[in-house]
Formats: sequence, structure tokens, C-alpha cells
Amino acid sequence: MAARQLSVVSVGAHQDDELGCLGTLIRYHQQGWRITTVSVSNGDKGGQHDPSIPHAVIAQTRIEEATRVAGELDGRYFCLGQEDGFVFDSREVRLALAGILRSVEADVVITLPPADYNNDHVMAGQIALHASLLAAVNVIDTDAPPLPRAPFVLHMDTIVGLDFQPTHYVDISDQFAEKARLLRLHDSQMRSQPNITGWDLVTHAEVVGRFRGQQCGVHYAEGFRPVLRTPLLRPGWMLPQ
Amino acid sequence: MAARQLSVVSVGAHQDDELGCLGTLIRYHQQGWRITTVSVSNGDKGGQHDPSIPHAVIAQTRIEEATRVAGELDGRYFCLGQEDGFVFDSREVRLALAGILRSVEADVVITLPPADYNNDHVMAGQIALHASLLAAVNVIDTDAPPLPRAPFVLHMDTIVGLDFQPTHYVDISDQFAEKARLLRLHDSQMRSQPNITGWDLVTHAEVVGRFRGQQCGVHYAEGFRPVLRTPLLRPGWMLPQ
Amino acid sequence: MAARQLSVVSVGAHQDDELGCLGTLIRYHQQGWRITTVSVSNGDKGGQHDPSIPHAVIAQTRIEEATRVAGELDGRYFCLGQEDGFVFDSREVRLALAGILRSVEADVVITLPPADYNNDHVMAGQIALHASLLAAVNVIDTDAPPLPRAPFVLHMDTIVGLDFQPTHYVDISDQFAEKARLLRLHDSQMRSQPNITGWDLVTHAEVVGRFRGQQCGVHYAEGFRPVLRTPLLRPGWMLPQ
Amino acid sequence: MAARQLSVVSVGAHQDDELGCLGTLIRYHQQGWRITTVSVSNGDKGGQHDPSIPHAVIAQTRIEEATRVAGELDGRYFCLGQEDGFVFDSREVRLALAGILRSVEADVVITLPPADYNNDHVMAGQIALHASLLAAVNVIDTDAPPLPRAPFVLHMDTIVGLDFQPTHYVDISDQFAEKARLLRLHDSQMRSQPNITGWDLVTHAEVVGRFRGQQCGVHYAEGFRPVLRTPLLRPGWMLPQ
Amino acid sequence: MAARQLSVVSVGAHQDDELGCLGTLIRYHQQGWRITTVSVSNGDKGGQHDPSIPHAVIAQTRIEEATRVAGELDGRYFCLGQEDGFVFDSREVRLALAGILRSVEADVVITLPPADYNNDHVMAGQIALHASLLAAVNVIDTDAPPLPRAPFVLHMDTIVGLDFQPTHYVDISDQFAEKARLLRLHDSQMRSQPNITGWDLVTHAEVVGRFRGQQCGVHYAEGFRPVLRTPLLRPGWMLPQ
Amino acid sequence: MAARQLSVVSVGAHQDDELGCLGTLIRYHQQGWRITTVSVSNGDKGGQHDPSIPHAVIAQTRIEEATRVAGELDGRYFCLGQEDGFVFDSREVRLALAGILRSVEADVVITLPPADYNNDHVMAGQIALHASLLAAVNVIDTDAPPLPRAPFVLHMDTIVGLDFQPTHYVDISDQFAEKARLLRLHDSQMRSQPNITGWDLVTHAEVVGRFRGQQCGVHYAEGFRPVLRTPLLRPGWMLPQ
Repeated sequence: MAARQLSVVSVGAHQDDELGCLGTLIRYHQQGWRITTVSVSNGDKGGQHDPSIPHAVIAQTRIEEATRVAGELDGRYFCLGQEDGFVFDSREVRLALAGILRSVEADVVITLPPADYNNDHVMAGQIALHASLLAAVNVIDTDAPPLPRAPFVLHMDTIVGLDFQPTHYVDISDQFAEKARLLRLHDSQMRSQPNITGWDLVTHAEVVGRFRGQQCGVHYAEGFRPVLRTPLLRPGWMLPQ
Repeated sequence: MAARQLSVVSVGAHQDDELGCLGTLIRYHQQGWRITTVSVSNGDKGGQHDPSIPHAVIAQTRIEEATRVAGELDGRYFCLGQEDGFVFDSREVRLALAGILRSVEADVVITLPPADYNNDHVMAGQIALHASLLAAVNVIDTDAPPLPRAPFVLHMDTIVGLDFQPTHYVDISDQFAEKARLLRLHDSQMRSQPNITGWDLVTHAEVVGRFRGQQCGVHYAEGFRPVLRTPLLRPGWMLPQ
Repeated sequence: MAARQLSVVSVGAHQDDELGCLGTLIRYHQQGWRITTVSVSNGDKGGQHDPSIPHAVIAQTRIEEATRVAGELDGRYFCLGQEDGFVFDSREVRLALAGILRSVEADVVITLPPADYNNDHVMAGQIALHASLLAAVNVIDTDAPPLPRAPFVLHMDTIVGLDFQPTHYVDISDQFAEKARLLRLHDSQMRSQPNITGWDLVTHAEVVGRFRGQQCGVHYAEGFRPVLRTPLLRPGWMLPQ
Repeated sequence: MAARQLSVVSVGAHQDDELGCLGTLIRYHQQGWRITTVSVSNGDKGGQHDPSIPHAVIAQTRIEEATRVAGELDGRYFCLGQEDGFVFDSREVRLALAGILRSVEADVVITLPPADYNNDHVMAGQIALHASLLAAVNVIDTDAPPLPRAPFVLHMDTIVGLDFQPTHYVDISDQFAEKARLLRLHDSQMRSQPNITGWDLVTHAEVVGRFRGQQCGVHYAEGFRPVLRTPLLRPGWMLPQ
Repeated sequence: MAARQLSVVSVGAHQDDELGCLGTLIRYHQQGWRITTVSVSNGDKGGQHDPSIPHAVIAQTRIEEATRVAGELDGRYFCLGQEDGFVFDSREVRLALAGILRSVEADVVITLPPADYNNDHVMAGQIALHASLLAAVNVIDTDAPPLPRAPFVLHMDTIVGLDFQPTHYVDISDQFAEKARLLRLHDSQMRSQPNITGWDLVTHAEVVGRFRGQQCGVHYAEGFRPVLRTPLLRPGWMLPQ
Repeated sequence: MAARQLSVVSVGAHQDDELGCLGTLIRYHQQGWRITTVSVSNGDKGGQHDPSIPHAVIAQTRIEEATRVAGELDGRYFCLGQEDGFVFDSREVRLALAGILRSVEADVVITLPPADYNNDHVMAGQIALHASLLAAVNVIDTDAPPLPRAPFVLHMDTIVGLDFQPTHYVDISDQFAEKARLLRLHDSQMRSQPNITGWDLVTHAEVVGRFRGQQCGVHYAEGFRPVLRTPLLRPGWMLPQ
């Protein structure tokens, strides 16, 4: 595994769905990993703070915001372009994501859990699992060559921790301020999100982060569960230590 | 919340899928709530008692039956028109249902649980959850204006109580006779249902109702579980008390 | 049920174990219910902030603190006197608790869940369930006469929310400040608790309260699950509404 | 397995706890199995219909009733003599039960599940599992010689089906009338049971039996789950077919 | 049930997905049942051992292999023809499978569980459940007449036993050698499978078979769970005894 | 944490209960950790291969075997002396174990899960959890001073993997031969164990180890779950990496 830079990819439905794993991505980055973020949708329903903004403009704004956040981690953001609110699984979206996982040589994929609040999230997680499998299948053609082996895949927490009990905790006490700073770069969503769930992204991160932290005896934590599917499951720990 | 009439919507796959919550709808109605029932499919495979009846005729019959049942509760029935046996999730069906939820100003939605016996039921529940979310998204356009907040959503029992343990029980002892009377208005299904599950609707209601009643110490009850997804989850009790 | 004052009893292992339901007790009190708190142990290991204090002194201090907190709710605190850290189920402790439930004519019992962090908590919950059953058994003799029916029993949240997904949420946004004030009356435990779990009682209440609140769309909430055992289960809602 | 008569033992806390498996015992008997019933307690709190009856008299009455029921199946009833309401696990009770299992050469044991409503039931189930293990341990001495192998152990349903989803169903449609007749032989409990759970034994059997029957497509059924512990688990089916 | 030959159908996503139930199929065959195997996909991504082989050639090879395996059990293999890696539920595939279940007069269907590793597997299981329901619906037209009743449906184990705890075990100790022999007839997959999961089919069968065997006290076993949906659930045992 | 040697303790009911974690202990040892093994019972029922051996002799033999195994890992074995087959929780056994955890400055405790096959195992796990908590309580006196913080506690697999789905896997492919060698040092149990579960210790290790290995893509693995209780839960990974 020597000289190659290790690579982690978060796969969400929307541009700010790394909410549940951003502190962990910061720790990965601090340890030298390559960071990639992906959203399956274009996020074009994210203008709830100002419905007069055209959907296409919001999508573009969010893409720029997500690109900037990824850039702060020396990483790259990819948008798969599906309509927000209407993410469905398909041959095309699976191949597009498999192609990205190959191009960045993913070792770890972190995605949304099946109990999450929005069916776009459920679908994004389903697509991420299947694409992770396909990425190592040598008879599936994409621009990039197949991975030598499928990435290790984990589910992040649901947006408010409902119906999710982590088994893996990452201490992000030292990364929390940076996590909050990066979340604020999703400026449009800082204003839009309260219209859906009642609180902005930083408040969600604060409340869930302290709760998961208290559960494992630190100030802030993020919680995960490994996906119990071969060949996506590995021995040992591939989260930041 | 003052003067506005509160509003509950049951969302099933077929016209008689309020089987698991009809006693509760009767109690809501007695307490002054507005009642709406929705089926995602047209129910056109409901002619099993007489396969010679054309599918379209059965669909029309069932729509009339469901309309009459809703009418007995001073409510309204909506049919989303998908083919019975082949309910799938889609952009169109989600928007159609979100539009209905908006038009009746839904406060509570009761739908079918993910463990139910027929994939039409599973899909109807999935569609109901997503449409409940979309109904309060102000950048999604339908004829009716967005809801000020998403409804509280609960799952009703499965048809024979398999793989479902309620956490919320509603005493329908005083409503059971009326529930049976209304179920008999689904006249075609009283004759068709035994061909699928072995018993008619009133027998299902009787057997499950007594069982759920005995579990909580009353003569007849219906059982529910809140959907554990933000923003569909609320504090307190929004079922009839 | 007319003129009789309704009665709720929280049963914990230690004097501050109403941590998970104190906001709810405040709401019950505001609605005119009779409040009782019980701890199975004497809490004599609560001197971790100053191990030089004799165990018996700590126990006495905690009993006084718990008595004062109950008094602020016009209620009464009972101590069953078992050694802290070594709570076991027995004939005697069951009968003692059943006697208390009878003497205060308990309608609702709130106790600790089986997944809680300390075996004293697990045992207290087990004892509470069995005593609730015995309290209505007319051939079991205690000083007080049998209850006409067993109370409705619920489990409160675990201390840091681990391994517990509520199905019932109570909004305590308006009671949170008072909850914090009452918790501070457990002065010895405000200083001792950080030695075990890392945070004081008010911090636990704050972090868990905001998290459970966010899950159901309010500022602060407490979460519960009904105990799925006959005759302890009832239809409807017996928590504050 | 040749000529030896096969043997099934139901282990409950009280004399009427074969409520959840009596139809199945009748089928076993019809197929030539040897039937044994055991209660861990003496049932001396079963006089709730007439609290003036001394506890010892009730215990004696119930022992006679249970003996008669077992006799109707050409079987035998054993009482382990613990005080009703206060069943605890112990070295003595385990050895007593292991001795019985050996003396009747048990092939199958059916006992109460861990979610049942009364801690006596939970304890009886725990004792039954451990005694089943010990029965085949050749260095544990009892009057009877060790079993050549541990029996296959299953959990029966809870008294009102709460928190129990069977995986194994036995059709007792043709045995239900006989089950009701035998339950009525527990004459004292037909009158006492309504004081605890609200209904008599035959009503419980009727309501749960029809519900479990409807779930698997027959008129009456009883539901079971195999105990997932080696060496108590076996391949194949050892329930009546 | 008299003279009619009983019929079992295994429904997988790929031609070798009877991996989890092949020993059981051998036992069914030995007991005189009619054997049918179905794969929803054409398996055209099974050439991972030699990516130079055209997809269509691989599909054809696998169809021949599966046909031969079924033939060894005097049975028949059906291919539903979907693209491997991209199995989706649809009206057409459901009807095609329902038609097959009717044509072979299925009494039992064994399919893949929802937790399996590949979304093709998850979809195949979902399609199998719905088609089993439709097969007995007399107003759904296919070439073959409707079944008199829906088949009994069970889930087989996941490929490496992840996230699956059987409740039904079938002893295949005496069939294991034959199972291994038949698996080797999937010659292409013996060479391709190690590229996905790391081991060939016989090794999977060996490792999982010994593990499930040890759990129930025999040398080799296969594990199952009944599908908890009416009318697919039955009393008694329809697996080989 | 600097210069102090890290310390892991396995707590079982019997002397060979490190069966589920011995490969992991070998890896800990290779990484310089201090190894301790504890059995709550004296194992005096372990003479099933030769019932003529007095119980006390077997106990002594097993203590010597366990001492030797621990010695091979430069560690120490402690026996808490309870009668085999009759392990119960008590004040004394908790304090004895807490004293050992303190004396070896435990950082990690690995113990038996609540679903294990023998009630001695269930009790040993319960005692281990409570003793781990008490070990850091500064007002509980034992010979050794309190730990600065409670150890991180994990459950190991059940003996044949029943009812246990690991979330944490440790690759023991390179340690398996040594694990087998050390298990054979439990010479008496190599001969006794087949009388209970049907196979000897090495066979259990082989079958479960290959199965858990295959699940996570390696040759041999052991599986674990963190105990979800504060303060026993920690962020990060404390198993061998």
C-alpha cells in the first residue's frame, strides 16, 4: 500500500450531505488521504430560503459551494446531476459513480444509511453500495480502469441521529471548529435547511456531535456503522485513528 | 392551531387499505377532524371473486365504494390511478400525492408499513413518506400552496399483524361496529379478499382488532408506529385520545 | 377517574435517576398530577468527588437532595435502601416497591431501560416492572390495599441515549430551565457524576435534551418507550400532552 | 430413534402456562409422544377471584388441576414448588428440572420466552434453557442418568402475543376445541386470570389462536421460535407436522 | 395433495445463486419433488476470470451450466434475461416469473434475502415475493393458469452468512459432496467468483455449510428464514425432513 | 499513555472461553500488550470425557492448563472459583473481578455476549460489564487502587456464532496456527468439549474463524461488538490493527 495516497469518498444525495462525516473527512485529510465528495442530485430544491431563485441557479450555487468545501480539503467534488427530490437508482447513475470511485482509486466510501429521512438519501446510499461493488468488477467498462478491490464502505449517521446506533465512533473534538467553518461555506444551505428540519447545518452538527461525543466520552464525535456486505467489509479500522 | 379543522389522511395502495386504521379514522371524525383517504392504485385486480368482470369495471366499482366510505366520514377519497399489482414510485405519483396533502392541509398521515405483504403496499408507504416531506417544500410547485410544516406520519399495522409490533394503540372498542359497517361498504372486496388471504375484510378487522385490543387491555384496538424520520416525527400524541 | 388526582412514579436505581424524565415530571406536576420518585439504592457510592466522605454520609446527603427535588414538585421521595453498586432483585425489594406504588395510587410508572449503563439501572427497571404487576394482585399483602389496575409503565432514555430509540417524545422546551434548576439541587451528584461519565447532570440533560428535541422538531425533549407487557400497556397517551 | 417413545416437556412458571402450546401438546400426544408439563412455582397467588382462600389451598388446587390436564394427555405434571410471584434462578431449581428432563427422556422442551409479561415467566424460561443443557452433562448427578443429548428447545408465544413474532407455526385448528376443554380444567384460573390480564384462559387462547392462525392461513395456530443456542438447536422440524 | 408431484423453485439473480440452497434442492429431489431454478439476470458479467470473453458468450455459457445443474436434478432452469449488475423490478419481470411459478405449479419458493451483498440479489428477492403473490391471483393473466394458492416462500442465507440468522436449518451432511459436484458444473463461475468475493463457489459452500452445520449440531447444514408475509407463510415444515 | 504497557483482559466463565478472542490476544501480545485471562468459574464440570475424575481434580487441571496458555502469552490467568454450571452474579464476584482489572491496569476487556449458549457465559459477561464500571469508581475499595478510567469493553463471538453479528473484525490469518496450538494446551477440554457441543475447541476455532474470515475477505478472523454502554465505550479502535 506503500507510496500510494489513500483515498476516501463521501457519497450523498445533496451537496451538504457530508454533514455526518465532515469532521472525519478533515481528520482523513490531516492524515494525508485524498478527499472526494459526491452528490447524486444537483440540489436544485435547495432554495427554500428564497423560492424566487430559479432552480438552476440554486443548483449552480450549491455546486460551487460544494466544490469550495472539497477544495479546502484539497479534494474534488462531483455532481451526478439528478433532480433534487427525485433521486432514483439506474444503470447510468451506478456507472457514473463507479467511474468516479475508480478515477479517484477509492479505498473507503462513506454514504447515507437506509433509515435516513429523505428518500433521496436512501437511494444515494443504495447507489453507493452497488457502485462500490461494480467499481472492482473488471468486466464493467468505464473511463477509468477497475479497482483492484472494492472499497470498504460505511454508513454515516442520519441527519438527526434517528434510528441509527453507531458502532464506530470518531473523535472530532479537535476538528469541530473547522467542520463548522466548512459547513458555513454551504452558505445557501445555512439559510435553506431550517425550512426543512428547523435548524441550520451547524446546529445539526453541534447537537449531534455533542451527543455522539458524550456517548463515547469525548467532546464531539461522529458515528458510523460498517456495511455488512461482502466484499465491502474489511477487518480492522479504516477510519481515522 | 385555533379554528382550523385538523386533517388526517390515510394513504394505501388499494381502496380498502384503511383496514388497519379505519376505527381510528372514525374516532378522528368524531373529534371533528377532516378525513381523507387515498389509494395509489386503481385497484383493478380486485375482481377475484368473479374474474369475468373487466378490470376497468372493478376499478370503477372500487372507486365508488371508497368514495362512499369516505363520504360516511364526511371525507373525500382520491385515486392516484396506478395499475393494481404494479405500483411503482415515480416523480409523478409523489407530486400528485403531495398536491393532495397540501389541498387538504394534512396534519397527520397514516400509511402502510414497509413489512406489509404486498409490494404495492411497500411502495405506497414509501411514496407517502416522501410526498409528506415534499408537501412542505416551498420550491416544489403543485396546484395547492405548500404546507407550513410536514405532517406527522405513522405506520398502521400490517394486514394480519405479521412483523409489526405497535408502540401506539388506539382503543376502538366503541367504534368497532361502525368500522365493520363501513368495511362492508367495500362490497366487492368483501367477496374478493378471501381469494388472496383467506378471509374477508371484517374477519381481518375482527381478528386483528381483538388481538391488539387484548394486548393493551381493551376490547378492540388498532396499533401504530410513528415514522422515525425528521421532520415527520413530533412530540406528543396526534392520534385520537 | 373523575376527581382523583392522577399519580406518576419514577423508579430509578439512584437518587438522580429521574435525569431522563424530570422535564416530563415537571409537566405532569403542572397538569396537577401527584409526583413520586423512588430509588432502589441508597446511593452511598456517590461521593466520588471526595472519597473521604463516609458512605453513610453520602447516602444521607443524597436522600435529602432527592427529598428536596421531589418536594419542589409537591411530591415525595422514597429510598429502598439497597447498597449502591450492588442492587439485586429480591422478594423484599419487590414488595417494598409494590407497597409504595399502592400507597401513592400509581397510574403511571417511568423506569430505567434494560440497556442502561449500570447493572443497578437494569435491576431497578426489572424490579419496577414486576412490582407494577404485583401492585394490582389482590392476594399480595402490603400495608396499602391493591391497585384496581396495574399502572401504565414506560422506559425512559438511557443516560447518554445509547442503544435507545424513543417512540414517544415529550416536549420539555418550556420546562428545561426548571429541569436544570432541580438537577442542580442534587448538589453532591453535580460534583460526583463527572467522575463516572465525564459530565455533570445538567450537561447530560442539555446534550440529550437538545438531541431528542431536534429529532422531533422542538428545542428540548425527553424520549420514552412503552413497556410491551400486559397488563402494563395501555391504549392512548398517558404522558403530558 | 426406533422404538423409544418420543418425549416433549413444557416448562412454565405457573400451572396454566402451557396456554401457548397446549394445542401443540395435543398434537404431539395424538402422534404418540410422551407428554410432561412442569411449573417452576406452586402457583399460590392464583386465588385472585377469591382472596379469602389460603395460598396453600390455591397451590394445592392448581396442582390437582394441572395433574388432571396432563393426565388427559396420558402425561404427568411436576411442580418445582417455588413461591408464585417470586421465582428466582438457583442451583437447586436447575438440578430439579434437569432431573425431570432426564427422567422423562426429553427430546423437545417448550418454554416461555424472555419477553413475557411476568418476571416469573422470564425466570422459568432461563431455568429451562440452562436445565436443558445440564440434562446432558454427564458429570452432573441427579437420580436419573444423563440424556444422550440435550433436547431441542423452543420458545412459545407470550400470553397476548406482545413482542413475539413466531417463525414456526403449528396448525391447531382440529385441536382447538380440545385445547379449550383442557384449559377449562384449570377451573380456578378460569376465574382468577381475568383479574390480572382482563380475560380468561380460553379467551386468550381464542384471540391469540385465531390471530396466529390468520397469519399462516389456517383457522387456529400456535407460534414458536427455536432457541438460538447450541446444543439446544437442531436441523429439521421437531414440532407436530 | 395426493398424487401430484410437489414442486420447489429457487429464484436467484444469477445462475449460481442456488449456492445457499443447493443441498436442500438435492434433498427435495431425493424425496421426489420437482426442481426448478430461475435467474432473473443473464449473468453476462460473469467473465471476470477472462474479461476478453464477450458478455453474450458468458451469458450463454452460464445458461448452459445452469441448465445442466438443473438437469442433474431432473429439473429445469429458466433465465429471465435481465442484464447482470442491473437487475430492476418491473411489471414484465414479475409477470414472467409468475408465469413460470404457475407453469411448474410451485409449492415452495426459495429466494435471496434482503440483506444480500449485491443489489441484483435484493431485487431478485423482491421480485420473487411479489411474483409468488401474483401467481395465485386469478385476474392476472399468463400462459399458465393461476395457482390454487400462493407458494410458501423462504429466504436462503446470504452468500457469506452476513446479517442473516437462520431459524430453519436443513441437514445436508449426506448431500454435501453432491452439492460440491454440482457447483463445479458452474465451471465459468468457479473461475470468476474469486475475483469478486475472494473464494470459489465450493469454498463458500464448504465454509458456510460447516458453520451452519456446527450451529445445529451436524456436519453440514443450510439455513433459511420463512418470509413473514401472508399468504406466503404456512404452518408446519415444507423443507426436507 | 506513553511508556505504560497497555493491558487487555479476557473474562470468560470457563478456562477455555478465550476461544473467541485468542487469536486477537496473540496479536495484542505481539504488539506488546499485557495479557490477562480470567474465568469466573473453576471449570469443575469439564471432565465429561471421563466422569470418573473427581470434580476438584478437573478444576485443578484446568487451572493449570489456563495458566500455561496465559504464560505462553507472558500473561497471567485468574480463577474466581465459582462452581461450574452455577455461575451467579454477586457482590463478592464483582469486587474480585474489579480488583483484578485494577491490579493489571486494564485498558480493554473482552467478554462473552448476552446471547451465548450457557447461562454461565451470560452471567460472566454481566459480571464483567459491572466490574469494569466499578474498577474506576474511586469509592469502591479493593487491594489495588482505582483505574483512572473504565476500560473499553467488547463482546466476543458466541461459541458457534449463533445470534451474533460482529461489527468489528480482527484478521487472525497469521495467528491461526498459534491459536490452534494454544487451544490444544487445554488438553482436558480438547477431550471434554465434544461431549457438549459435538466438536473440540480447535474445530470450533477453525469453522468459526474461516466463516468470520470469509465475511471480511481474509483467511481467518475473529468478530467483536463494542458494548454500547457509557463509560465503557470509546472512539477509535483499540483492537489490534
